[in-house]
Amino acid sequence: MSSENTLRKRLVAEFLGTAFLLAVVVGSGIMAQTLSAGNAAVALLANALATGAGLIALILMFGNLSGAHFNPVVTLSEAWQKNLPAQLALPYIAVQIVGAFAGVAAAHGMFDLPVFFASTHARTGLSQWWSEFIATFGLIAVIISTSRTRPATTPFAVAAYITAAYWFTSSTSFANPAVSLARAMTDTFAGIRPIDAPGFIAMQLLGAACATVLFNWLYPKSSSH
Amino acid sequence: MSSENTLRKRLVAEFLGTAFLLAVVVGSGIMAQTLSAGNAAVALLANALATGAGLIALILMFGNLSGAHFNPVVTLSEAWQKNLPAQLALPYIAVQIVGAFAGVAAAHGMFDLPVFFASTHARTGLSQWWSEFIATFGLIAVIISTSRTRPATTPFAVAAYITAAYWFTSSTSFANPAVSLARAMTDTFAGIRPIDAPGFIAMQLLGAACATVLFNWLYPKSSSH
Amino acid sequence: MSSENTLRKRLVAEFLGTAFLLAVVVGSGIMAQTLSAGNAAVALLANALATGAGLIALILMFGNLSGAHFNPVVTLSEAWQKNLPAQLALPYIAVQIVGAFAGVAAAHGMFDLPVFFASTHARTGLSQWWSEFIATFGLIAVIISTSRTRPATTPFAVAAYITAAYWFTSSTSFANPAVSLARAMTDTFAGIRPIDAPGFIAMQLLGAACATVLFNWLYPKSSSH
Amino acid sequence: MSSENTLRKRLVAEFLGTAFLLAVVVGSGIMAQTLSAGNAAVALLANALATGAGLIALILMFGNLSGAHFNPVVTLSEAWQKNLPAQLALPYIAVQIVGAFAGVAAAHGMFDLPVFFASTHARTGLSQWWSEFIATFGLIAVIISTSRTRPATTPFAVAAYITAAYWFTSSTSFANPAVSLARAMTDTFAGIRPIDAPGFIAMQLLGAACATVLFNWLYPKSSSH
Repeated sequence: MSSENTLRKRLVAEFLGTAFLLAVVVGSGIMAQTLSAGNAAVALLANALATGAGLIALILMFGNLSGAHFNPVVTLSEAWQKNLPAQLALPYIAVQIVGAFAGVAAAHGMFDLPVFFASTHARTGLSQWWSEFIATFGLIAVIISTSRTRPATTPFAVAAYITAAYWFTSSTSFANPAVSLARAMTDTFAGIRPIDAPGFIAMQLLGAACATVLFNWLYPKSSSH
Repeated sequence: MSSENTLRKRLVAEFLGTAFLLAVVVGSGIMAQTLSAGNAAVALLANALATGAGLIALILMFGNLSGAHFNPVVTLSEAWQKNLPAQLALPYIAVQIVGAFAGVAAAHGMFDLPVFFASTHARTGLSQWWSEFIATFGLIAVIISTSRTRPATTPFAVAAYITAAYWFTSSTSFANPAVSLARAMTDTFAGIRPIDAPGFIAMQLLGAACATVLFNWLYPKSSSH
Repeated sequence: MSSENTLRKRLVAEFLGTAFLLAVVVGSGIMAQTLSAGNAAVALLANALATGAGLIALILMFGNLSGAHFNPVVTLSEAWQKNLPAQLALPYIAVQIVGAFAGVAAAHGMFDLPVFFASTHARTGLSQWWSEFIATFGLIAVIISTSRTRPATTPFAVAAYITAAYWFTSSTSFANPAVSLARAMTDTFAGIRPIDAPGFIAMQLLGAACATVLFNWLYPKSSSH
Repeated sequence: MSSENTLRKRLVAEFLGTAFLLAVVVGSGIMAQTLSAGNAAVALLANALATGAGLIALILMFGNLSGAHFNPVVTLSEAWQKNLPAQLALPYIAVQIVGAFAGVAAAHGMFDLPVFFASTHARTGLSQWWSEFIATFGLIAVIISTSRTRPATTPFAVAAYITAAYWFTSSTSFANPAVSLARAMTDTFAGIRPIDAPGFIAMQLLGAACATVLFNWLYPKSSSH
């Protein structure tokens, strides 16, 4: 990466990318719930396809600049693997969280809703925590394996994985602490009660750690193709 | 681009591409509304997927010839960045607008409707204008960032972005002045009242300008990968 | 292409590809109509997505061997452009037609239906003929333009185009004489009355001819990228 | 493949890949049935899109390590073609079967269901067996043809094929003996009665054998592009 890609630009990229990601997740959830006449499967289908399509665009846009993490556990995993200088982890995570809240506010503005209003959507219990563990394990696994063997496909692999994970996990796969915090501030389709966010985040950290260890063994850095 | 790709061919490409784009947007909207038995989410899903799929084909078809703008704000942004000779901007925009109307007429012909009939679909207000600002900002951002870092993916990134934007904006993301004008002439699913088009277009220009400035700073032309 | 790719293999490829294409179109139509509880938009969405996905696979499978035409107007257009030796056009078209009927019979077998039974689905009139003209014009346009400028993307461009064309044309875009003949022999979702097939085929030939002329001017063979 | 890619890693890859595949198929089936309010077409659409998207991610993740078979008939076909050392076939198949059951259990855990409970979903009869023959014939055909002519596209071709096959076969295309066994242990949307699994598996073996013979003739190993 050239010297022009300063820290400032990388942080702007993470801010914008995470903000757009949340605008897509929350905005499409609102639109889907409004239009779907009570058929929750149609609503989740629209929400999942919009998120997957949005991720393709966002990762292609920002991947070459910041790595397109948009996700604190991705940043921590990359720093652990020494793909990201350790001192950048905290700034990355900070702008991701600020960006996530900005994205929720932007979506609310598009749908004439308050800037923030806490979710009442209960998402808790063993099966949901297990879901978040699996979802985040899989996300980090996709990122490490594809970026080390065919990096041009990573944006498509991640987007496809998340589209599937909306459906195969009972939690609809948050898999992202910044997303979990920000979605606590929207009482719409995509919301999560603030009290339930910490349990999700704990399982996300655990899933990401397990995947980082296992996939660094499966795909050691020295093995190139 | 070789010398054979004369202005004439480029303008034909912009005309055909914009006409097909409008035929896809308006035609699939009519089909979707007719078949969806009142479930607006199913209709919008079909409309969004058809538009995204159509854009993949159209941008791949015409990208190497005219740049596949199909959109006056894209043309203005490209001219501002000096990717397009300034004197081509006006001809490009003219054929885009003519093409857009031709596409609406073609779609109406396929569904036994009048050539043109003004829309009565109200799309106005602060939240919709904010939506158009965001939608167009994002579109120009996708184009500049991907075309400067991995141009082979631009057709897919743009199509994915627009598919998502149908869902995450309350305006369903027109993001295109030629589209906004032509969709005023169809009183079907995709229509917009003529009186509401200027507000949309103003916000599209503003969003495109902001994205052009910000993303030229993020991805300066001299930085190549 | 190596000398091993004899005519025999190319004809087997065209036979299998066209048979699978019809099995996908007719089979997914039967499944969609059976399951969709009367919501025709959901049925057409499944039918269109299955067809588009099937086309990606089939064109990638057979493109390097036979060109993956699966369609007499594509074969005629390729022969006209001298991409296919003229004496192969008739054998290609013959196996495409036989393959199309075999595919319908295979689909009927999968759903416990008679081998063939004539459709009663009326598809006629000016607006449907105009639809078939547009649909086939666009298909040939996609093939010529992408195969001359970025041939690796042609399978995806064609599949995306057809997915969109199911929705934006009132005829749901047959765009293929072999498909039109074979779908006359299935009285299911995808059927067309035998008496209506000739009108569709005439417009398909006209659309293909116009696109061949126009796009050979837009993308002359000597212009390489 | 480097010497570091030991057998152990390849078997872990096959285990994880098959487990995730089953978690996606079964988990998304449960979610789809729960949310779709009785519209089976919407449920199957979600199930098919989640499976296709999941396959893109999983094949991209594990393809370079184990070949991403996740399927005993793929392993047998690859061993027959001498792409896989014969002595690896049995270990591959063993971990695929164990992985498949682990994936079903993981999905059940995400949705608060028993670890295993036998399916009561009858899937038998000539038309379903014919469907499994066709489905598996096509799957092996896609793998052989694309991996010999444009291997970078195989993950996308396989995923697209399976998405289509959910819809165009009356059996919804199991096409995989490990999947057939494991889905006998879930009495949910994706289940199959244990008594019906052997018939499916027999037809899958037959379809795979026919495709291996035919496509090795169509695309002989010595022909490279």
